[in-house]
Amino acid sequence: MCPQPRIRGAFFGGGLLPISYQPSAVSYQVRARVVDNPNMESLTELRVRYAETDAMGIVHHATYPVWMELGRSDFLRELGQSYAEWEARGVRLVVNEIRVRFRSPARYDELVQVRTSLLEPGRRRVVFGYRIERDGVLLAEGESVHLVAGSDNRARVLPDDLLTLIQRP
Amino acid sequence: MCPQPRIRGAFFGGGLLPISYQPSAVSYQVRARVVDNPNMESLTELRVRYAETDAMGIVHHATYPVWMELGRSDFLRELGQSYAEWEARGVRLVVNEIRVRFRSPARYDELVQVRTSLLEPGRRRVVFGYRIERDGVLLAEGESVHLVAGSDNRARVLPDDLLTLIQRP
Amino acid sequence: MCPQPRIRGAFFGGGLLPISYQPSAVSYQVRARVVDNPNMESLTELRVRYAETDAMGIVHHATYPVWMELGRSDFLRELGQSYAEWEARGVRLVVNEIRVRFRSPARYDELVQVRTSLLEPGRRRVVFGYRIERDGVLLAEGESVHLVAGSDNRARVLPDDLLTLIQRP
Amino acid sequence: MCPQPRIRGAFFGGGLLPISYQPSAVSYQVRARVVDNPNMESLTELRVRYAETDAMGIVHHATYPVWMELGRSDFLRELGQSYAEWEARGVRLVVNEIRVRFRSPARYDELVQVRTSLLEPGRRRVVFGYRIERDGVLLAEGESVHLVAGSDNRARVLPDDLLTLIQRP
Repeated sequence: MCPQPRIRGAFFGGGLLPISYQPSAVSYQVRARVVDNPNMESLTELRVRYAETDAMGIVHHATYPVWMELGRSDFLRELGQSYAEWEARGVRLVVNEIRVRFRSPARYDELVQVRTSLLEPGRRRVVFGYRIERDGVLLAEGESVHLVAGSDNRARVLPDDLLTLIQRP
Repeated sequence: MCPQPRIRGAFFGGGLLPISYQPSAVSYQVRARVVDNPNMESLTELRVRYAETDAMGIVHHATYPVWMELGRSDFLRELGQSYAEWEARGVRLVVNEIRVRFRSPARYDELVQVRTSLLEPGRRRVVFGYRIERDGVLLAEGESVHLVAGSDNRARVLPDDLLTLIQRP
Repeated sequence: MCPQPRIRGAFFGGGLLPISYQPSAVSYQVRARVVDNPNMESLTELRVRYAETDAMGIVHHATYPVWMELGRSDFLRELGQSYAEWEARGVRLVVNEIRVRFRSPARYDELVQVRTSLLEPGRRRVVFGYRIERDGVLLAEGESVHLVAGSDNRARVLPDDLLTLIQRP
Repeated sequence: MCPQPRIRGAFFGGGLLPISYQPSAVSYQVRARVVDNPNMESLTELRVRYAETDAMGIVHHATYPVWMELGRSDFLRELGQSYAEWEARGVRLVVNEIRVRFRSPARYDELVQVRTSLLEPGRRRVVFGYRIERDGVLLAEGESVHLVAGSDNRARVLPDDLLTLIQRP
């Protein structure tokens, strides 16, 4: 029997609020840490925006790399250091290649899940894998290949602590 | 003393999952209904995507109408009938005008709140208002004016039940 | 009677390049009219991208601010100094407000014209106006209000030569 | 020695239209080279939009699939029947897979060329190839794989005349 992990992450939501709304009442924090596991995966749930659809009535294919980036961003934050922090330290993951295979269309207002994992946690090259689903139905899968670079966009190696961080899972 | 409302809405999130992840364990449902109030407002929280920024290092201004639409979409869903359901019934809110006033920039990875309200719930014309904030700091405010139309994009009036719905707040 | 001017500007194009190419087939000239008017106006012609449409089968409304920016960008370049050059000099036109009124929808693959003019060429505040058309049919009109800022995004005044430039028309 | 062909295609442009306009100032001709090659290639030139850049100061990678689609769209139009016409006939090229390899960044206001060719002109499956350049410098290359479908998004075969059309080059 596997334990049921709660999910760590920022949750994005919507709701009707009365005039007497008190911000302090709202809590988007979800606490959960998943530790003892060799193969971690992050989960990002998003709702399809009207602007993401096209005249075929489905989500435009160029939207998926944006969702993958969102998933990768959540993955790194959950790992312990957000990509915004990476950037502030002068470490960039420059996109070198993207591949997406489309399996089933998504539509406006649907809830979509992006599952992100780290396929290759290298010192100079990092590869992420993605599965995009709607309630268990595979919509698309893809990979993004990144080269490690500095703020000057020149190749560099990952700092040891970040390498340790991404190799931990 | 004001009551502390819980928020009704779909929450979007991210988190690391172990290999043994069981989807049944995840619940993004947040239940709350806010009823007895003359002035309702919906709250949508989102995380700024890298793709939404521009070379000035801030969120590109054309992103805000997309966020406003997201807020409007949540507003209607929370009211009781999603815009996807409106469309399925042959009722459209065609965008007739948008206005956005920018007050403070947003940046990658920040959590942003969109507060949506209904300024004019008419039978032929519906106006929404928006306040976009980051933890209480006003980033932008705007309005969108919509004309009621059918699936053929011709003007029509709102069905009575939808009119009652939007005039309820 | 006005002379029929050719248009100054950057032209974007596409074409098949076979060995047997026949130039006589070319028939995509940009047409433009210069009215008897002291004010200058720039003309940007673009072809609607599939990615710019939405599930209603028409161009998504958040696309229009992007087209307006494209028009404004062409306007400044044609005036004599591109906005890229402005930025390199540490001068930015921060977007303070946008307004768009939608009149008629645009669809995939249509050729659309953006007519940009300068409504208010101030030292601290610059306002552009836009008419977006398809072969004379008005699709949308709008304005963008900009505040002059430096690379640090703090308010500043326009350098004299740029002020002279924008006040020339 | 190849003849210097003018380019067939839709040209997109901008220009100031003063009364005192001087046509002699025009100097934005699109250049193109036709190599000694039996395969056709279409050329689409576009100017980088500010909205297409991101906080790294370069064009966001999810913009490239949009440019590839623009190139593919020009390719089909130049071949003799636009994709809008395909759609009107109930024939769709559903995107099944995209791959992009990024070689060098593009920046705001640069002129970029998209060279599109047909790698696999099948009856059920069509593959396009793309080279995205800036004045001869390779920015990215990619492919898009498409399955032929009807208006109902179900698989079908290409009508004979369209098959003949795409197999002609």
